[in-house]
Amino acid sequence: MQKIITVSRQFGSGGRTIGRLVADKLGIPCYDKKLIEKIAEESGYAKEYVSEESEYAPGTGGFVYGFLGRGIDGLSNADKIWFSQKKVILELAEKGSCVIVGRCADYLLKDREDCLNVFVYASKEFRADRIVNQYGETGVEPMKRLKEKDKKRKLNYKYFTEQEWGKMSNYHLAIDSEKLGIEKAAEIIVAAAGGNNE
Amino acid sequence: MQKIITVSRQFGSGGRTIGRLVADKLGIPCYDKKLIEKIAEESGYAKEYVSEESEYAPGTGGFVYGFLGRGIDGLSNADKIWFSQKKVILELAEKGSCVIVGRCADYLLKDREDCLNVFVYASKEFRADRIVNQYGETGVEPMKRLKEKDKKRKLNYKYFTEQEWGKMSNYHLAIDSEKLGIEKAAEIIVAAAGGNNE
Repeated sequence: MQKIITVSRQFGSGGRTIGRLVADKLGIPCYDKKLIEKIAEESGYAKEYVSEESEYAPGTGGFVYGFLGRGIDGLSNADKIWFSQKKVILELAEKGSCVIVGRCADYLLKDREDCLNVFVYASKEFRADRIVNQYGETGVEPMKRLKEKDKKRKLNYKYFTEQEWGKMSNYHLAIDSEKLGIEKAAEIIVAAAGGNNE
Repeated sequence: MQKIITVSRQFGSGGRTIGRLVADKLGIPCYDKKLIEKIAEESGYAKEYVSEESEYAPGTGGFVYGFLGRGIDGLSNADKIWFSQKKVILELAEKGSCVIVGRCADYLLKDREDCLNVFVYASKEFRADRIVNQYGETGVEPMKRLKEKDKKRKLNYKYFTEQEWGKMSNYHLAIDSEKLGIEKAAEIIVAAAGGNNE
């Protein structure tokens, strides 16, 4: 039995919804927005700021980094949030079974044997349709929104983990949510998590 | 319900064994060595030759290409085998439910809605141990054997499909057989294949 399930996902793939479904099916908590609240609490930053910060990586022109720079301790806000994020995630994993969506949890928990790392992906067309349905239209074209969001996730992941976001070997299971559907994807993860680790 | 399941795999990951298990569980045929026989029959080449050929890609110094070159029709032996392979795989898929291991079947059947493409992978250490246990020692170090075999599969796949072997987006499901185990991997594929395509 895998105690912790991390769900990393391409923007618009339905990974967050799948994470919640998995948690419901297993009767364990799902940390996605709740995770942001906990990191905000731990770091002292506002949760909107913490939420936004995850979308930028130092040096990519994100306003957070470009504008606010580093404190007198030499740490950027991003670094400080990263340390809080790490602390919160390690503590949550210690506390009990849960699903954690995003936030480099796969990397932070990579030394735990009881952690299943999942990646959820889908075609750009599927995701573009889905974000318009889920989050509504914005002034920016859906394809552009996807590209920017994924790029930022990739850079953020790379900056903090020195690994490749979305590279198969960083995950134990990767699922195409377009082909398999949201519900079936959740079932597959539950089946995988229930398995022995032979 | 997915009618056809293709299993692509890193050398030593247990993908072939997983393919057979899936076929057993679903009560459908599994084409791995049987596929080689069919391609040999269709193409007129010896099955040892067909089997060997899949390990080389034109221009990589494989003896098959280097030595035998092209026929008067301008086609290399590799090309001829490729056309036979394509014909056999398309016909098998038309005939009924089955599992097909390797041989670019994922690419050849990519236009079928009822085809589930799976990729099986594991760490180099796990695979090196496994090939020694499964196939015995050879004069070549296991890590070198792995590297060469995967490289040849990659080049062969690239040459014929112009796609990237092992790239997540070419598959619907990717499974780490080391983490999840051979049996559990097969169960996950069966669960995925049984699902609706919402």
